[in-house]
Amino acid sequence: MKQKRFILPESEIPTHWYNIMAELPNKPMPMIHPGTKQPLKAEDLYPIFPEECCNQEMNDTDAWIEIPEEVREQYAHYRCTPLVRAYALEKALGTPAHIYFKNESVNPLGSHKLNSAIPQAYYAKKQGLTHVTTETGAGQWGAALSYAAKAFGLEAAVYQVKISYEQKPYRRSIMQTFGAQVTPSPSMSTRAGKDILTKDPLHTGSLGTAISEAVELATTTPNCRYTLGSVLNHVALHQSVIGLEAEKQMEMAGEYPDIVIGCFGGGSNFGGISFPFMRHNIKDGKTTRFIAAEPASCPKLTKGVFKYDFADESGYTPLLPMYTLGHRFKPANIHAGGLRFHGAGMIISQLIKDGMMEAVDIDQLETFEAGVLFARTEGIVPAPESCHAIAATINEAKKCIETGEEKVILFNLSGHGLIDMKAYDQYLAGDLINYAVTQEEVDANIEADKLD
Amino acid sequence: MKQKRFILPESEIPTHWYNIMAELPNKPMPMIHPGTKQPLKAEDLYPIFPEECCNQEMNDTDAWIEIPEEVREQYAHYRCTPLVRAYALEKALGTPAHIYFKNESVNPLGSHKLNSAIPQAYYAKKQGLTHVTTETGAGQWGAALSYAAKAFGLEAAVYQVKISYEQKPYRRSIMQTFGAQVTPSPSMSTRAGKDILTKDPLHTGSLGTAISEAVELATTTPNCRYTLGSVLNHVALHQSVIGLEAEKQMEMAGEYPDIVIGCFGGGSNFGGISFPFMRHNIKDGKTTRFIAAEPASCPKLTKGVFKYDFADESGYTPLLPMYTLGHRFKPANIHAGGLRFHGAGMIISQLIKDGMMEAVDIDQLETFEAGVLFARTEGIVPAPESCHAIAATINEAKKCIETGEEKVILFNLSGHGLIDMKAYDQYLAGDLINYAVTQEEVDANIEADKLD
Repeated sequence: MKQKRFILPESEIPTHWYNIMAELPNKPMPMIHPGTKQPLKAEDLYPIFPEECCNQEMNDTDAWIEIPEEVREQYAHYRCTPLVRAYALEKALGTPAHIYFKNESVNPLGSHKLNSAIPQAYYAKKQGLTHVTTETGAGQWGAALSYAAKAFGLEAAVYQVKISYEQKPYRRSIMQTFGAQVTPSPSMSTRAGKDILTKDPLHTGSLGTAISEAVELATTTPNCRYTLGSVLNHVALHQSVIGLEAEKQMEMAGEYPDIVIGCFGGGSNFGGISFPFMRHNIKDGKTTRFIAAEPASCPKLTKGVFKYDFADESGYTPLLPMYTLGHRFKPANIHAGGLRFHGAGMIISQLIKDGMMEAVDIDQLETFEAGVLFARTEGIVPAPESCHAIAATINEAKKCIETGEEKVILFNLSGHGLIDMKAYDQYLAGDLINYAVTQEEVDANIEADKLD
Repeated sequence: MKQKRFILPESEIPTHWYNIMAELPNKPMPMIHPGTKQPLKAEDLYPIFPEECCNQEMNDTDAWIEIPEEVREQYAHYRCTPLVRAYALEKALGTPAHIYFKNESVNPLGSHKLNSAIPQAYYAKKQGLTHVTTETGAGQWGAALSYAAKAFGLEAAVYQVKISYEQKPYRRSIMQTFGAQVTPSPSMSTRAGKDILTKDPLHTGSLGTAISEAVELATTTPNCRYTLGSVLNHVALHQSVIGLEAEKQMEMAGEYPDIVIGCFGGGSNFGGISFPFMRHNIKDGKTTRFIAAEPASCPKLTKGVFKYDFADESGYTPLLPMYTLGHRFKPANIHAGGLRFHGAGMIISQLIKDGMMEAVDIDQLETFEAGVLFARTEGIVPAPESCHAIAATINEAKKCIETGEEKVILFNLSGHGLIDMKAYDQYLAGDLINYAVTQEEVDANIEADKLD
């Protein structure tokens, strides 16, 4: 029998995260303070995030950062996650490609988000904080933070993007089961929320609006800090456990990936699986391709511009050098709520700019077609976000049919879709549509932002 | 760092199921043909089930039965499942007990049911059948069978208990995503369904009614057979992989269970985790206690009678020697839909009768209290069914606080509750109630059945 799953023994689970910032050929430009317009220092972020997260955010010298024992104890609840050879999917496609996926969906919260929620909650607790707050798009990050906060004895307040709050009531229930307070965003509970609702009472929310609300809560509440599930460097740092494990697991399988693929919202899961392999492109002459799969309805990497922009709709956050659709871009209500973000993480933006990573944009219907095929072959109903990675994988695997190449493709299955069955219902009933954004719409949006 | 999770290397995953029938001190009495009133032969079951399942059902001579390679290939999608030491739960309880759980919820379908769905679909395919049908209570079994059928190229038709169809629409979606046809039961599509709806148009269904419908479909459709997710011997046989793995994993942890606990509907997960350990009670003088945790609303083991009874409401099935509440017993609409069955598997019934296993019944509110504590400590939202096992585990762990004993308790986490969040919503909102059945009600029900 051919081995299908590869799992590391506990002794091989990473004890250090990989910090690609220390080894990038071109480091990203600095974050800019929105008031002073000066490069940001770690201390400038202390009012917003737990201090250790701020220090990690700015650390571009240490390639390896030790994972605290308390975090590793929590990781031990579910890590190492399996690396799986998708034989059944390969067979269904008739491709000579070898398809592997890293299965982050076996995580008890259902996605890779827990990998960063745990250290962020841990550092908040260690600093003596009592509360953490955040926003959540699909609800995956909010669920992960709700559990992590409970595990370290913190209270959690989560702003859930309103459309997701309505589409995915079970995610709210999960957060509440873990004791979190959940508010649909935009809400009337913050100035940012009120401003947005005053302009547009029917605003269905976006990650950008929810971030504004959570940051406001954090900066106006004692002993409370904000946490973020994607975009930032320290999040990608924590998520490097995915790729570090995958690297050793691929070794167990006797292969090395020609292509690494992840879905792309802000970059946490794509960076997490990519950066440890990217280090061998940087240092050891490997030529692995890295493909970010983003929704056609939110195509910042394929149609956005590289510039300084805010991470939130209201302009509260530092300015980040990144690919963006403009911080007031309002993504369509696709089911992949975790990918409805106007910008991209700084490191990945730099790597795309430098031609070291690629991006593809994929229509909603194509992603669900890929997701259903994956479910029917590999037995796992994927999250709508992860369906983007699967669709991109299938496209690469189909190219191998034409060329006959036995390429090794590794993708990250960032989460399962068991809470997203309404989306599958709609897809199977033929009720879903595509929402592609044109280059003209993006350009007009970017122009409008210049009027600030 | 203390090791929390124990996972077997692939080389240690069982290649044979354990058939406790071959080693029982007192074998169960035979199944009886409802027409001839004679002991049933395997051939009598051929019109209902795949033939190999019938042969396994009657096999009481071979203690070990080889797992076909095609089945092991499918098992490799998710097995070995982790054995986890519940340190955080122990700490929250302040118990000296060592609590372990076998985590069957990491299975891509979310419960242990896949362990038997795969071989049943495989044997159906091998026999040249084209269709399989079944009933499902909570939807766990139906989802598992839908995937397994797809994996082996069969069509699946699932009768889902109506109350569950309404309470858990996502389960229906999952089955449909895997390509199955799903009908709420009782339906108008069978004679059995029509009869039941004629008597009680508002009947919300039960496993007993749904079994009647599925058996009728199987016996009236060419190349179609019925499959069952619990109760029968061959199902417990397939589920023995749980206990066989757990046995080796407990060895890795350097412990042996004093108590083994599982929730109890028909016996598939409780038998699955118990029988491999029971064999050491039978053969090697071990004195492990085995506790089946059933709902107070469906207390066949604690308040039912041991007698021959039908497995379905309409009386289509063979007569089984078992603990039962009477085959017309209509369980209350608790959220643990998988435990809403009037009878118990024959082997477990015999072992209870012989004093080799125990049972406890637990109120719905107590099960959810246990489930929320488990979620907040171990990070996994358990299925309402599994909450019964957790509640029983907590009760045993609390006894250890009083006695100071460091007992080793192993329970089976049969599934996660991510599709059951509505139940948690209601619990957290204070909207759930208990539905205990009294001994008088049970006795009256049994008396009524005698009038047949």
